[in-house]
Amino acid sequence: MNQMRGKQSIQFDKAPYLIASSSVVGAKEGEGPLGMMFDRVNEDPQFGEDTWEKAESQMQKEAAQMVLEKTGMTPEMIRYLFSGDLLGQLTATSFGAGGLDIPMFGLYGACSTCGESLALAAMAVGAGYADTVMALTSSHFASAEKQFRYPLEYANQRPLAATWTVTGSGAFLVAGEKKNNGARKFEHIRITGVTGGRVVDFGIKDSMNMGACMAPAACDTICQNMEDFGRKPEDYDKIITGDLGYIGQKILIDLLNEKGYSIEKQHMDCGIEIFDPEAQDTHSGGSGCGCSAVVLASYILPKIEKGKWKRVLFVPTGAMLSTVSFNEGQSVPGIAYGVVLEHA
Amino acid sequence: MNQMRGKQSIQFDKAPYLIASSSVVGAKEGEGPLGMMFDRVNEDPQFGEDTWEKAESQMQKEAAQMVLEKTGMTPEMIRYLFSGDLLGQLTATSFGAGGLDIPMFGLYGACSTCGESLALAAMAVGAGYADTVMALTSSHFASAEKQFRYPLEYANQRPLAATWTVTGSGAFLVAGEKKNNGARKFEHIRITGVTGGRVVDFGIKDSMNMGACMAPAACDTICQNMEDFGRKPEDYDKIITGDLGYIGQKILIDLLNEKGYSIEKQHMDCGIEIFDPEAQDTHSGGSGCGCSAVVLASYILPKIEKGKWKRVLFVPTGAMLSTVSFNEGQSVPGIAYGVVLEHA
Repeated sequence: MNQMRGKQSIQFDKAPYLIASSSVVGAKEGEGPLGMMFDRVNEDPQFGEDTWEKAESQMQKEAAQMVLEKTGMTPEMIRYLFSGDLLGQLTATSFGAGGLDIPMFGLYGACSTCGESLALAAMAVGAGYADTVMALTSSHFASAEKQFRYPLEYANQRPLAATWTVTGSGAFLVAGEKKNNGARKFEHIRITGVTGGRVVDFGIKDSMNMGACMAPAACDTICQNMEDFGRKPEDYDKIITGDLGYIGQKILIDLLNEKGYSIEKQHMDCGIEIFDPEAQDTHSGGSGCGCSAVVLASYILPKIEKGKWKRVLFVPTGAMLSTVSFNEGQSVPGIAYGVVLEHA
Repeated sequence: MNQMRGKQSIQFDKAPYLIASSSVVGAKEGEGPLGMMFDRVNEDPQFGEDTWEKAESQMQKEAAQMVLEKTGMTPEMIRYLFSGDLLGQLTATSFGAGGLDIPMFGLYGACSTCGESLALAAMAVGAGYADTVMALTSSHFASAEKQFRYPLEYANQRPLAATWTVTGSGAFLVAGEKKNNGARKFEHIRITGVTGGRVVDFGIKDSMNMGACMAPAACDTICQNMEDFGRKPEDYDKIITGDLGYIGQKILIDLLNEKGYSIEKQHMDCGIEIFDPEAQDTHSGGSGCGCSAVVLASYILPKIEKGKWKRVLFVPTGAMLSTVSFNEGQSVPGIAYGVVLEHA
């Protein structure tokens, strides 16, 4: 039997395997510190399309197709797709992965969607509802800027607390024990547990400081995960947040210290890893649904596969911001999902 | 063991119970044919708030609180919340149900979200991941018009194919066999199976004719449900779509006839039931995330509870439309989820 753990976590009886991943990014991400690790760097920010939204859809399709190619699988072999993006009404997903003809569950958890999709994917496989499912998320710098801020042509100045939306899409295949007729690119990565995320609102209204908006949610989910599973930070080789950036990281570490948890040694943030802040002028770091997805796909998973990291708590973070809520003076609540990845 | 059925369906080994529902609607819905059945009709379209988005959030909170009150439960007793709405970045949900402090999975399936949320809720309970979960969706006429069309003050004319977005929110509690310390308002309704929905795009570009955009997706999911479970239309007392309206209904019946399925006798559409098209000037019918939710909560479930209907296929339908994709000349693909509700 699958086990409910504590207040909001699940421990899988038969922990699903994460058998393959793919990452597709833009040119700027390719120039960053992780550039060599991504599966595909596309120099054309429009991905051959005529709008930013279609570009993001195309990038998402490429990531999905690539993870299928890697395993020699076809869309018909994937029972369900859990996917999302940042755009209103999941525009990129509706016209991207939607075209794959895989039964789809559309998700929105802001930049935490990679965690939400992996959690639900693991839950579906762990329950025996599917042999193999796909989790897929994307973000695109230009479609996000257009939607949340200003058209790029305005060249508006970004404050130092701001993060840079990652152009990237990551796809993941999650499968059960049984042979699914696909080649397993990873054989030693299991999703052993998940922790659902609550909306946490500290009343912060600065949409240019997402790290501060999301850090309290990351703190909440990390604490809950440790409480639910009876673990300490040292029980994880790494605790990896999605896109808190430099400012959010400091806040998270402070908040967790107040709760009695010291995670300085274990903490890593995908938004900090993906760009070089000096050379790339990205201020507080990278962000977006694609940020944690492509860092997980390219950098984190191979380390778990090789056993360099035995147990990782992956915590994508999201800021519940819309231009409408922002312009109406609402705060920016955060949410974060916890996914426990183990070498096994 | 839970059973994968056919290509995209699940049959639950221990079918979860739908133990309670609530419906909160606006004045116009209260004046419609189902008006007397809704739990609460709020005469104030702003629900005491100063923006349409906050109004929708407030309505959603009221629906959630009401379903908890009916069963004597508290938010702490609900393990997960599956919820969504139509607004960009799920604005209504982020600031509505998010405030309940229940670990949340944010969903977007356009107007099909009620089906998506019930499917995932049943999957979570059916797998033993939770004792009790909540599914919750909402839409508001004014927040939807403002986002997808024009400010209400423009008083733009609506074509006859258009539907009227329902102001309403429906909340549902889904629970396992075990006592969850709440009073069960319904004791005889079980979710015995679900059918995942695929994105189906017939290339229709008329955003004022949602019924035509969604009917092919409804057809796809209904056919797949019958194929996966080895059923005929007669095996259902009712096959109930979400918000196809009069035009979409005709198309659906035609499309299914072409596939060899005749559902004239069983078919019902929540969008057709909720308004009186003559007296209420709603043209093709009602629509929105709240439409199928409040009709299910108030009208359909009591009939199943009493055994008047033994087996119902509930198929909320969604049109993947954003103002951005529409203005960029994209088509409007559809999606539909199937939820099998049985008297037991």
